[in-house]
Amino acid sequence: MKSDIDALMQEKNLDAVMIVGHAEHNSYMYYFVGGGHVSHAALIKKRGEEPVLFCSDMERGEAARSGLKIIPFTKYGGTELLKKAGGNLALKKAMDYQAMFTDLGITKGRVGLYGVYDVGTILSYLAHFKTLMPEVELVGEEKDGAVIVRAMETKSQQDVERIRRMGGITTEVVRRVAEYLMDRDVREDEVLLKADGSPLTIADVKTKINLWLTELGAENLEDCIFAIGGDAGLPHSIGNPKDLLRLGQTIVFDIFPCEKGGGYFYDFTRTWSLGYATPEAQELYDQVHEVYEKVVDNLDLNTPFKDYQRMTCEYYESKGHKTPLNTNDPTEGYVHSLGHGVGLNIHERPSSHLAAGPDHILKPGVVFTLEPGLYYPERGMGFRIEDTYWMNPNGTVEKLAEFPYDFVLKMTKWKKK
Amino acid sequence: MKSDIDALMQEKNLDAVMIVGHAEHNSYMYYFVGGGHVSHAALIKKRGEEPVLFCSDMERGEAARSGLKIIPFTKYGGTELLKKAGGNLALKKAMDYQAMFTDLGITKGRVGLYGVYDVGTILSYLAHFKTLMPEVELVGEEKDGAVIVRAMETKSQQDVERIRRMGGITTEVVRRVAEYLMDRDVREDEVLLKADGSPLTIADVKTKINLWLTELGAENLEDCIFAIGGDAGLPHSIGNPKDLLRLGQTIVFDIFPCEKGGGYFYDFTRTWSLGYATPEAQELYDQVHEVYEKVVDNLDLNTPFKDYQRMTCEYYESKGHKTPLNTNDPTEGYVHSLGHGVGLNIHERPSSHLAAGPDHILKPGVVFTLEPGLYYPERGMGFRIEDTYWMNPNGTVEKLAEFPYDFVLKMTKWKKK
Repeated sequence: MKSDIDALMQEKNLDAVMIVGHAEHNSYMYYFVGGGHVSHAALIKKRGEEPVLFCSDMERGEAARSGLKIIPFTKYGGTELLKKAGGNLALKKAMDYQAMFTDLGITKGRVGLYGVYDVGTILSYLAHFKTLMPEVELVGEEKDGAVIVRAMETKSQQDVERIRRMGGITTEVVRRVAEYLMDRDVREDEVLLKADGSPLTIADVKTKINLWLTELGAENLEDCIFAIGGDAGLPHSIGNPKDLLRLGQTIVFDIFPCEKGGGYFYDFTRTWSLGYATPEAQELYDQVHEVYEKVVDNLDLNTPFKDYQRMTCEYYESKGHKTPLNTNDPTEGYVHSLGHGVGLNIHERPSSHLAAGPDHILKPGVVFTLEPGLYYPERGMGFRIEDTYWMNPNGTVEKLAEFPYDFVLKMTKWKKK
Repeated sequence: MKSDIDALMQEKNLDAVMIVGHAEHNSYMYYFVGGGHVSHAALIKKRGEEPVLFCSDMERGEAARSGLKIIPFTKYGGTELLKKAGGNLALKKAMDYQAMFTDLGITKGRVGLYGVYDVGTILSYLAHFKTLMPEVELVGEEKDGAVIVRAMETKSQQDVERIRRMGGITTEVVRRVAEYLMDRDVREDEVLLKADGSPLTIADVKTKINLWLTELGAENLEDCIFAIGGDAGLPHSIGNPKDLLRLGQTIVFDIFPCEKGGGYFYDFTRTWSLGYATPEAQELYDQVHEVYEKVVDNLDLNTPFKDYQRMTCEYYESKGHKTPLNTNDPTEGYVHSLGHGVGLNIHERPSSHLAAGPDHILKPGVVFTLEPGLYYPERGMGFRIEDTYWMNPNGTVEKLAEFPYDFVLKMTKWKKK
């Protein structure tokens, strides 16, 4: 939680943290600012002190909504500084940083640097900054261990309620999609039809998903996964927009929207087969569902997340599938990790990777996904089930949104001959 | 254009360029890959050679859609490499980079590094990479001069048609908003009402905007600006969601959506006053409109963009307003630059800033905005007019979407008493 940051900074020997970039779609800045059109911004927090938000004059109104202490960049010269820098934008920005640090009394020490930003640009700033303030070391921390990411790992009750609300929106959209699909007319060749009689494509379904999300105040920052057949067998295939919806094929529907403007995410997956399932697909689905239930039944406070990845691998291997436990980087069978933390980032701590460090545990306050799958692209099928869970500090595990686990969706206007 | 990249690399003495990050919402990667769910990716292009896209196995299907040569990271060891790195994710990634460069025959020289990425993470990779491959220098170029940004500055006919299509979508949404507002009932105190009789808020209007954009296949990556009264006087205020829509107040509506999935942007602004305008607001609006027309009438091939910023400032100063020409960083009057390039980034080259370099000219193929404004937050008003233009290589200037410049929107169900 945010209140852990000072201790984490101490542990990493950081005197301050600095965040650069937009407040939207940049979880580091969003964490402190709470979104809004603050696009030319920087935030500095000294250890043990409140953060200060530096902004453009044009965005002072937006910045003020954050409730943070605000300083406009123009305090340090703006146009004058650009002239001093001979029009060199990178040097000017480094001079801004120098003035900001000096103003806050930071003239030496280690400062952690965070944000989602233009990589070339930040490197060009840092090259100048090194010359201007050689005694202030700007340190890059790998995301997994970065102090802000570690603080984000445990959620406050308020954070959890926002994620739960996103869970409600996500499952409502999924419910509407299921209902829409089940209600379609079906052509002789088992292709689903739109109301106008033309074949229903993945692109059509995605348009509906996006409209429903927008209506409910959420957004797909990245396109969701709605993949049928062989594409369902590639975990990150988002589906071919032109593919037709057909009966009896596996559909992986993985949807991970966030609050409009880049807030909290939810992550959710169901696998469906419309009308009927082939016996082979039903058997594999049942295995995915079985191991999913097994993991859920065994979840326990403060257990290393990767213990459940191992449990999943062992189960699958007992059924004859390849997994990362005994195969390096398998491309069929079970090919990924069991889950990941979710918050202002769609993927964050803790990690369930078999190589994850010992601090990736299901500690009080983490919000995480469970998403075992099976992938056989060459057999034209793939499967995944995913929900988002909260480790309540009281030790109980809460699923943040309910949705049925039916594999076969019954078509209301179609019967098997 | 893309075909300029090799010459630009030569000019900057770069032996290769490397791009990191997602294909969506990362213009550098999108420029080569064309979008899609390619999130764990890197692209390397040697000078004079075709680019190579490195991807995760999970995303090999998505990556293949780009038509580029694909190499999965697992070619270099994947899990094995992570073990060699002792589980250190940053070192593992640096080892990936080393293997990729070596595989492409790059063992020394200067490589430009680009992409929108987690800053701390990339710095942690670079720290290890420096040790592994001291003879390969990864160079950060400030955005304004970066070779890929400079290549993007001039658009192909195909790029322009995509921007023009976004212009059509944008103006269609604006038309729907205008029609919706004009059709409202108005309360005694000049507040607009929704169909259910409750007051219409900015949040309500934004929900409609987002739905219409989604329906038409576009997205607001950042929230659009729909700001009334004093907020309209702050150029980047997106508007207070709870503000009510009222007659006779200036509304700045600045909308800059992109193709769904992070493609081409369009940028557009109108200022409206519903029902009637105060004489003071009408006079200021007329000035903005007049200088806008003056600039458009004078646009000429190969002219420095900032010449028109100067023209705008001189006009405004003749009317008694502060501008950046003779006031450093004004906070009222005319407070920003005249326009900017638009493409896969909402702000790109050329720049119209008075301090912009001599190469920011309206050369053949640039797409740019013109957006003069006036801002008086303390008088409760602001104004801006903006369209997006293309400098056709034949020397003619084309506005990429038409929309009327009416300031007062006539309310169909309300008459001034």
